[in-house]
Amino acid sequence: MQSEKSLRNTCFREEDKQPSESSWKKFENVFNYELLPYETTTQGSKKTSQFLLEVVDILLDYIKKNNDRSYKVLDFHHPHSLRNALGPCLNLDDDPKDLEQILIDCKETLKFCVKTGHPRFFNQLSTGLDLIALAGEWLTAAANTNMFTYEIAPVFTLMEDIVLAKMRDIIGWPDNNCDGVFAPGGAISNLYAVLAARYRICPEIKEHGMEVSPKLVMFTSEYSHFSIKRSAAILGIGTNNCIGIKTDSKGKMMVKDLEKQIEKTLASGAIPFFVSATGGTTVLGSFDPIWEISDIAIKYGLWLHVDCAWGGGALLSKSHRKLLNGIDRADSVTWNPHKLMGATLQCSAVLMKEKGILEKCNSLRAKYLFQQDKHYDITYDKGDKAIQCGRHNDIFKLWLMWRAKGDSGLESQIDKLMDLSLYLQKKLRDKEGFQFVINEPEFLNVCFWYVPKNVRYIEKGCRRDALLDKVAPKIKSMMMETGTTMVGYQPLGDLPNFFRMIVSNPATIPDDIDFLLEEIERLGEDL
Amino acid sequence: MQSEKSLRNTCFREEDKQPSESSWKKFENVFNYELLPYETTTQGSKKTSQFLLEVVDILLDYIKKNNDRSYKVLDFHHPHSLRNALGPCLNLDDDPKDLEQILIDCKETLKFCVKTGHPRFFNQLSTGLDLIALAGEWLTAAANTNMFTYEIAPVFTLMEDIVLAKMRDIIGWPDNNCDGVFAPGGAISNLYAVLAARYRICPEIKEHGMEVSPKLVMFTSEYSHFSIKRSAAILGIGTNNCIGIKTDSKGKMMVKDLEKQIEKTLASGAIPFFVSATGGTTVLGSFDPIWEISDIAIKYGLWLHVDCAWGGGALLSKSHRKLLNGIDRADSVTWNPHKLMGATLQCSAVLMKEKGILEKCNSLRAKYLFQQDKHYDITYDKGDKAIQCGRHNDIFKLWLMWRAKGDSGLESQIDKLMDLSLYLQKKLRDKEGFQFVINEPEFLNVCFWYVPKNVRYIEKGCRRDALLDKVAPKIKSMMMETGTTMVGYQPLGDLPNFFRMIVSNPATIPDDIDFLLEEIERLGEDL
Repeated sequence: MQSEKSLRNTCFREEDKQPSESSWKKFENVFNYELLPYETTTQGSKKTSQFLLEVVDILLDYIKKNNDRSYKVLDFHHPHSLRNALGPCLNLDDDPKDLEQILIDCKETLKFCVKTGHPRFFNQLSTGLDLIALAGEWLTAAANTNMFTYEIAPVFTLMEDIVLAKMRDIIGWPDNNCDGVFAPGGAISNLYAVLAARYRICPEIKEHGMEVSPKLVMFTSEYSHFSIKRSAAILGIGTNNCIGIKTDSKGKMMVKDLEKQIEKTLASGAIPFFVSATGGTTVLGSFDPIWEISDIAIKYGLWLHVDCAWGGGALLSKSHRKLLNGIDRADSVTWNPHKLMGATLQCSAVLMKEKGILEKCNSLRAKYLFQQDKHYDITYDKGDKAIQCGRHNDIFKLWLMWRAKGDSGLESQIDKLMDLSLYLQKKLRDKEGFQFVINEPEFLNVCFWYVPKNVRYIEKGCRRDALLDKVAPKIKSMMMETGTTMVGYQPLGDLPNFFRMIVSNPATIPDDIDFLLEEIERLGEDL
Repeated sequence: MQSEKSLRNTCFREEDKQPSESSWKKFENVFNYELLPYETTTQGSKKTSQFLLEVVDILLDYIKKNNDRSYKVLDFHHPHSLRNALGPCLNLDDDPKDLEQILIDCKETLKFCVKTGHPRFFNQLSTGLDLIALAGEWLTAAANTNMFTYEIAPVFTLMEDIVLAKMRDIIGWPDNNCDGVFAPGGAISNLYAVLAARYRICPEIKEHGMEVSPKLVMFTSEYSHFSIKRSAAILGIGTNNCIGIKTDSKGKMMVKDLEKQIEKTLASGAIPFFVSATGGTTVLGSFDPIWEISDIAIKYGLWLHVDCAWGGGALLSKSHRKLLNGIDRADSVTWNPHKLMGATLQCSAVLMKEKGILEKCNSLRAKYLFQQDKHYDITYDKGDKAIQCGRHNDIFKLWLMWRAKGDSGLESQIDKLMDLSLYLQKKLRDKEGFQFVINEPEFLNVCFWYVPKNVRYIEKGCRRDALLDKVAPKIKSMMMETGTTMVGYQPLGDLPNFFRMIVSNPATIPDDIDFLLEEIERLGEDL
């Protein structure tokens, strides 16, 4: 970790610029208005290519370092010291910077990035950097269009239809006469699902508001993603009317408690309308028993949503799709290809069994965007079913990556990750000082405590828990400061802080897992 | 326009591949798993660079064509014929495609893209392709991180703080102790604003739902963006409780009508809580009188939102910021740098005067993401104030573009566009057969009818309107089929369809405007 002073002296420097790349010199005192689209001469066009190729060169260098285990995962600095050091260099001024400075800016920015594609980055559900998806993202940026109409996004609109249909086929809805849309992340996808369910139970809310609605109550496991609860807050249902259902020792929703809560709700005079089953919870990676939950949903007429933002990719594996058994009985599904499938961020789909429900629920028919007298078939204009107006093209990178891997490539990627998870579990079992939070995890989340020697022989109880609670944060802190690897931790209910290891990076090999465990031991041994 | 058959034969073809680029041949039978991160040998690393450079080559070619007036803006095909022709070629199969096919896929996709950066693309509010923003977007994709915590997005978090503070300074809020977040588009930004306003008037809704709320009513001009109304639908307020305020002959909100509607609401026993003033309406480009509206908002205790998603950029111009006079009296502002400022899609900010309101309104304190015992200052973790969980990095491209242009560069870009708008207006005035929808438009939307000779001398009235209503769609249809230029049209209230010309592309020069008008005359003359 550099000192604040040395940070200030080396970063984003404008005086005494000495870029390592001598080829950047030719951009000294060259400004953006000398490039396309301002300067359309051959000269302008040539400079544009040269400039973009220099940027690509910087990015290729970063990509290589991302994949080189001799480079650190991150170069950590505390927020205030990074802010004090870089703040003045990051300023936006009245005058333009020349393109040499812009190249320096790119290079310096990457220096302080966390290498989320590094084989030893295990910190989030989304890890890795797929290079076909990256290429797709670069093209998306150059095409710079908007998904609201076929008019300005013809091929991408078709691709979205094709990919959504493919995803629904994989879910297994009997005839594919269904609906769906790509949304900016799983939280918004979940919001779409609750919104559609609310529309089905009481379509009048759209015009008249919740005042014409009976009191609505929704259900989700206590370990589900917080965006389900947040949807209740946003939609005016209220977080108190989003009931957290108890989970069993594996972190799965207890169907008996679900039914009990539904009965309790009915007895209170309120209307149960929605239940979300999670396919891969954020912390434990648990899969709720979808089939049994769907029986209850049918019995009481609830909308069944499956939030498999995280676990959806498992559907692509013949060996592992059983985790989501019953998903074809769902009314809606959230599935994020930017997680398990490895697409770059953002890429999230929400799929609906009922065709047309999104349009009915969300459309407002703005005449200036969705003209009814266009010369082409306007059923291809998808914008009015989205809650966004402008909508980023999240489809091309996914489509391209899927082309390059095929179903078979994605399947073997997922199977390989599942094998790695078993490898990690075996290692943990064989090593002293490690303890599972859940024995035999069924997915890619492997949650465990590292118990330092000084704590190892203390009797189970409050004192031990209090000590243990401090271990993971302490190790994580040292890990970040050395920058060698990154893994998440958190408490859960009454459980003290534990590590949550996520095996979702296709770049990872068994050696990297060994490295992580050894690093935890090395840093934590004497705590 | 090619026939369906010839389309099918030439596009995305896998048999008899004859890519024009012989350098692609080396990717025949080379698959994604031979690249990084799977193949970390020198060979794998080299192939990765080669592959990405081929992609960049395709993109550079596209960028050049984007800026070359001898290329068409689009190659139009009807949805069903594009679908029939390309559908089978776009399929996702079990087997992977080789990287040669992936390069063909990229090239073919671009062939059917609408060139939104072309100097003769005038169809949307967002036009143009800024190459610094593009470079920023490429870096963003390579960095592939998520904005929820400082932990994994340290520099980008600082950049977001810096840019938001800069934007608030420009708005003119007296001390910059305020709030804000980047959101996926203006519609979601507007949703944030209504949500925060609802929280301020009745914070209990978050937990208890709308049933504990008095009846809430909100106001916006009849010409405002439909996302304000949609927010009412989503939040459970109801579209009927979003009152459209009348506009004057310039399309500006009539403050008298606003006050009348507020009084009417109060008389009915409901609570007026929110008013949105539009800074640049979508169709006419009108600016509501913010200052006068803010007087009313203060008088009645309403939250004042300014939706200047479109017009916000005008704040950067000393000559034109008066359009938004009074904006510093707003409680919240939506401002999309992906529109007037020219950043690539998506880039939208929502800014709030009250510090901490977003956090209070939206946070749910998920312990697994926002651990309270981290070793760094967690006030830098911004995720819990967003309604998304994962959040795309929309800041870097904007920051980089702003660096490269400086305030002065952005100002002159906006001034230049305003001059071009005046140029267009003068041309329209001087030409026969063109008629303004609003005389002397004050912004970059220039709305006009082209009146063909056969209609020109018909008396004003229903018959003329009915004929005129068909002219713009017909011309637009021919324009798209020839592909030479693109401009939008729509009706408005009782007005028959008219063209809405948007001057927002920094690539445009007066010649392009002449070209558009001549093209309209050429295509429409004999209608």
